[in-house]
Amino acid sequence: MDTNVDDLNKLNKQFDFCREIDKEKFIGRQTYLTDAVRKENDAEHAWHMAVMTLILSEYSNEPIDILKTLSMILIHDVVEIDAGDTYAYDEKAKETQAERELKAADRIFGLLPEKQAEKFKNLWLEFEERKTPEAKFARAMDNIQPMMLNALTDGLAWEEHKVHLSQILKRNESTPEGSEVLWNYAKENFIDANVKKGKIIE
Amino acid sequence: MDTNVDDLNKLNKQFDFCREIDKEKFIGRQTYLTDAVRKENDAEHAWHMAVMTLILSEYSNEPIDILKTLSMILIHDVVEIDAGDTYAYDEKAKETQAERELKAADRIFGLLPEKQAEKFKNLWLEFEERKTPEAKFARAMDNIQPMMLNALTDGLAWEEHKVHLSQILKRNESTPEGSEVLWNYAKENFIDANVKKGKIIE
Repeated sequence: MDTNVDDLNKLNKQFDFCREIDKEKFIGRQTYLTDAVRKENDAEHAWHMAVMTLILSEYSNEPIDILKTLSMILIHDVVEIDAGDTYAYDEKAKETQAERELKAADRIFGLLPEKQAEKFKNLWLEFEERKTPEAKFARAMDNIQPMMLNALTDGLAWEEHKVHLSQILKRNESTPEGSEVLWNYAKENFIDANVKKGKIIE
Repeated sequence: MDTNVDDLNKLNKQFDFCREIDKEKFIGRQTYLTDAVRKENDAEHAWHMAVMTLILSEYSNEPIDILKTLSMILIHDVVEIDAGDTYAYDEKAKETQAERELKAADRIFGLLPEKQAEKFKNLWLEFEERKTPEAKFARAMDNIQPMMLNALTDGLAWEEHKVHLSQILKRNESTPEGSEVLWNYAKENFIDANVKKGKIIE
């Protein structure tokens, strides 16, 4: 099959993006993996959230387009290649987060051919704005996945960062908008259980 | 929202699976990441393939259901939690691979509620059998993603394992069935370029 110059140019741009995102595997998060030794990275986190969406989408409050939700989840942390991971309870870093991430989105999605650049930047913005049913469910996964891992490692990350219940509840104000069922399950099994054990400060 | 006993039982099974797959992040592969120091793990690999599918699906030889392709890709390596990663050019390990992986699929997908267990085991089998357009494209991604990373690290993994061109071509016999365009691009840019540099043995 012959590839003309325009097609080749397009393919080169698409592969430039595919290569660039390898860097997401080096962006560390604060969540411990199940070995309670290594912390997870953004790529592992996005994969885990995506599989959880395949398994748990039936619990979305509203019907969702699963492909759109997965697409959002798979690319939602790409901006952290430039902007870094902002820890959920680092109030200072959160002040500049939006600006840093928007600039990153322009550069990284801008590697793609124009139409795809626009499509994926818009998907990322939709995730950030958490207004659509897909964004609400994706954000719920973004919060419940690390909560599950924190619970599984006996609250290690919560203990290490001296996290208060009020911080977790504030962080999760909109999690029930994605899924009441999953929020209730997570609250009871992951959060309340660790408040009782003293791993989360009441 | 009240959750009755059956619903709770179902949720527990689904979260058992979601917790179990965390182990996929500890399954190492032979592909170096772009830092040429650390090798990638199965979860990172699946995430990378999934994003590449979002970007490159237009090049599938046949029309594909992207959600189905992503689902397959996201869960295709779950069996390696029990069966381990079998290196592409380890002929001895490949003899027992199918049996080890089938047993693993029964146990790991078997953690899920019955209908989901059946659905995801069948998706995994479909990937393995590479007969449908979705499986063919997913398998092409499974081969092209590490090829791209190997090329990006100047052929390090190929050099380390003294890989011959004939081995790569045999491994990729069916890659063009998923996408001729992507195979041609990968052959020229990732493989041929590294044969010329002596990183792949001719």
